[in-house]
Amino acid sequence: MPSSSHKLTLLGEHASFGGVQRFYQHDAPAIGLPMRFGIYLPPLALGASAASVPALLVLAGLTCNEETFAIKAGAQRVAAQLGLAIVTPDTSPRGSQVPGEAERWDFGLAAGFYLDATQAPWARHWRMESYLLQDLLPLVSDALPVQADGWGVMGHSMGGHGALTLALRHPQRFRSLSALAPICAPTECAWGQRAFAGYLGEDRNAWVAHDASALMRGRGRALLPSQSILIDQGERDQFLAEQLLPHRFEEACAQAGQALTLRRHAGFDHGYYFVASVVEDHVRHHAQACRQVT
Amino acid sequence: MPSSSHKLTLLGEHASFGGVQRFYQHDAPAIGLPMRFGIYLPPLALGASAASVPALLVLAGLTCNEETFAIKAGAQRVAAQLGLAIVTPDTSPRGSQVPGEAERWDFGLAAGFYLDATQAPWARHWRMESYLLQDLLPLVSDALPVQADGWGVMGHSMGGHGALTLALRHPQRFRSLSALAPICAPTECAWGQRAFAGYLGEDRNAWVAHDASALMRGRGRALLPSQSILIDQGERDQFLAEQLLPHRFEEACAQAGQALTLRRHAGFDHGYYFVASVVEDHVRHHAQACRQVT
Repeated sequence: MPSSSHKLTLLGEHASFGGVQRFYQHDAPAIGLPMRFGIYLPPLALGASAASVPALLVLAGLTCNEETFAIKAGAQRVAAQLGLAIVTPDTSPRGSQVPGEAERWDFGLAAGFYLDATQAPWARHWRMESYLLQDLLPLVSDALPVQADGWGVMGHSMGGHGALTLALRHPQRFRSLSALAPICAPTECAWGQRAFAGYLGEDRNAWVAHDASALMRGRGRALLPSQSILIDQGERDQFLAEQLLPHRFEEACAQAGQALTLRRHAGFDHGYYFVASVVEDHVRHHAQACRQVT
Repeated sequence: MPSSSHKLTLLGEHASFGGVQRFYQHDAPAIGLPMRFGIYLPPLALGASAASVPALLVLAGLTCNEETFAIKAGAQRVAAQLGLAIVTPDTSPRGSQVPGEAERWDFGLAAGFYLDATQAPWARHWRMESYLLQDLLPLVSDALPVQADGWGVMGHSMGGHGALTLALRHPQRFRSLSALAPICAPTECAWGQRAFAGYLGEDRNAWVAHDASALMRGRGRALLPSQSILIDQGERDQFLAEQLLPHRFEEACAQAGQALTLRRHAGFDHGYYFVASVVEDHVRHHAQACRQVT
């Protein structure tokens, strides 16, 4: 086991579909506070003949934490079959005691929006983008049997925003991308506008660097030239028309020449019954991308 | 839709794997208070050409409610494929305001043990056995597209105790039976002894009528002559040695000539990561039994 494994404190471990679902805590220099994450390791990554496996970073939505996707999505079954690890970070710093951090369910605690805040009092700890790229992914690949260059990224709702923007801002770090009911144009919806005003200030020029549709438009060429981005969206999603705006990302992909598989599903709402119903396709999407690359 | 459908208040509805996960509230005469339950209806039971389907009653464990199994087990995927409904009751009356009902996590609220209490102050509302058999099952079969004679029963932990004892006490009501990490001999473990003393009094003769191992021994012949009872048990279950005692039920089945498939799984603990890992086999077990009967 590499030396950095001592940086991880094991909080819980549960056998799951022949693999293991673990929860860890660790010091996060980018945040300045301890952070928690979950990891599912498939059977292939365990035991005497263990191999390093590709991993899928799964970013959760507002009000969620590192346990939500692990408990509710049922993705371990498919990840076990396909030999993929699943890493589920928390959705914000915890324990910073910033005044007002718990006042709103869509800002502050469990609402980090996967960016680095520039405005007081958030700028000190609310640095989720740096945390994920500088702290978490290197630590996981160093301390656990996860390939350093084998990361895909997906997310749900606010986490879908995170997946799209992190992949667009750091194209060399992720080799596949998907999202479930993502916030596609945060500069154009109330959730995003409130979060960006709080974390980034009132200058809207700073906002577009964290808006997936603006980033794709501005890029002007495909992010993943040989792959499609997969997005699933329920048509009975209560946040579809006001907050999510997938048509804006669809337009941007068309403009940039990025292949996009945007599936609109009758009947599904925004919650985890939707996520669980389509998650197998997402795990397969990322496993397929890994096989294309390796 | 039959006339009794007006007795059901729909609390929530979520598309799930082509079917629908619903939550209802209804008046429960046996309890004297409103009760809640979840139901998963598979695609076969919906739409213009809907058919009545067999149903699986799933009883949850201590601290759980009608949502727990629906959210965490991931059983809807298989139930959708096999055309089975899944009904998940709550684990106790709610809102009775019996003094002390919330003092312990293993007695009172969320700890009804699927029996009718005979002792004050519990005897008035804590009547989960009568509730399930007289209120819930007839109501579901009457108001929803569920076959009245098509019920299987399974449960987890305290709910495993419930499944085993209800099937043994009412053999005509259930045509298949399984359990996950069930409390198999409650008169011989602390959880059962505390609950039975509180709900049934100190006379241990009243207890054996709600002890699955004692019931099977006392029966002296098979409960399901042409079928095996399926039980899954994790070997790293923290409650195995002190509270669950599956060997006692195994001995009783051998004595009664009841076929039992008791699978002991290395590594698994007591929680829902275990339940999710084996639940597909349980849903298939019950669907198979339905096909044998019909």
